[in-house]
Amino acid sequence: MFKNEYGSKLLADAVESLASLPGIGRRSALRLALHLLDEPVPNVEKFASSIVDFRSRIRFCPRCNMLSDDGSCAFCDDPHRDASTVCVVENHADVLSIENTGQYRGLYHVLGGILSPIDGVGPGDLTIKELAERVAAGGIDEVILALSTSMEGETTAFYISKQLAPYGVKLSTIARGVGFGDDLEYTDSMTLGRSIVNRQPFKS
Amino acid sequence: MFKNEYGSKLLADAVESLASLPGIGRRSALRLALHLLDEPVPNVEKFASSIVDFRSRIRFCPRCNMLSDDGSCAFCDDPHRDASTVCVVENHADVLSIENTGQYRGLYHVLGGILSPIDGVGPGDLTIKELAERVAAGGIDEVILALSTSMEGETTAFYISKQLAPYGVKLSTIARGVGFGDDLEYTDSMTLGRSIVNRQPFKS
Repeated sequence: MFKNEYGSKLLADAVESLASLPGIGRRSALRLALHLLDEPVPNVEKFASSIVDFRSRIRFCPRCNMLSDDGSCAFCDDPHRDASTVCVVENHADVLSIENTGQYRGLYHVLGGILSPIDGVGPGDLTIKELAERVAAGGIDEVILALSTSMEGETTAFYISKQLAPYGVKLSTIARGVGFGDDLEYTDSMTLGRSIVNRQPFKS
Repeated sequence: MFKNEYGSKLLADAVESLASLPGIGRRSALRLALHLLDEPVPNVEKFASSIVDFRSRIRFCPRCNMLSDDGSCAFCDDPHRDASTVCVVENHADVLSIENTGQYRGLYHVLGGILSPIDGVGPGDLTIKELAERVAAGGIDEVILALSTSMEGETTAFYISKQLAPYGVKLSTIARGVGFGDDLEYTDSMTLGRSIVNRQPFKS
């Protein structure tokens, strides 16, 4: 009679689905599922369809690989952005993080991952060839590599630099240093060392 | 061109839906939505339908108000459970928590909330009348009040005790005391005081 630990297959299925999301354990999933009981059915249907719509209808810009609702690109198709600068990032979230700073007006190139032999991710799995083609087509003066400082990030940056070398485009990477509000005492020595080597003129 | 902070209405809608869940902020919601991009469309459709199915098809036991897939009740309809004892809890999650202990074999009664004048929850919004009818129908020897120790919980327990008084049923509440593994030093004085007053014979 008591079919599973939740006493209900419907509940168990909902919990299993919610617990499949990253960072959501079974206890949180149960809490979320039971929360949905307090919501009217149409709201839950709208919740579900917005997620399915996103997954099934989202497109990717054929040029920069960023998300697109209808094939147009909010970045590549914007005449007010600086098309001579391209910032290379690992994933879509990185683009939104950089946009959020309000400090960048160039274009992007989303690799769709990072080189990782252990995870079986090779150059062919990323949009590196497409990046080289963009640069080869001309009009790009600078490529900013905004990748993580992990072994994989450094490898990917190095590989990209080799691929772009023939085109003589200016390559740069984002500045590394002590974050605003961070204590020197708690900053790792690699970051702190880099922040001293790459010190900047003081502006009062 | 850049319609919103996510650069995509589809993404923005998905993030808004996920962020409507309790305990999930907009940053987590964005991470969850972008995670779904790595999942095949059928998986995401299955995810969504399990949630909609749960919400739209779940029933409630007409007797104890616990979840039911098909109208039958995993508790009330189980002949191996002790039908003479009923444990009164605020919500469905509480039932699953108590079941999880493996220490209780009686039946339940889910109130569906707790008396709270501030939130406009009165006796008519809970299944207190149904509980009184169950007790009046006979066969129940003991009602365990497993409600929270908040002001609302105490008020609800008091109100229920008044409603059940005419039937002479035995009323009890769950034991309060210092949790297993808790330090006395960090236990609040109300709990510690209660644990001394309600001390138990030592069993070696």
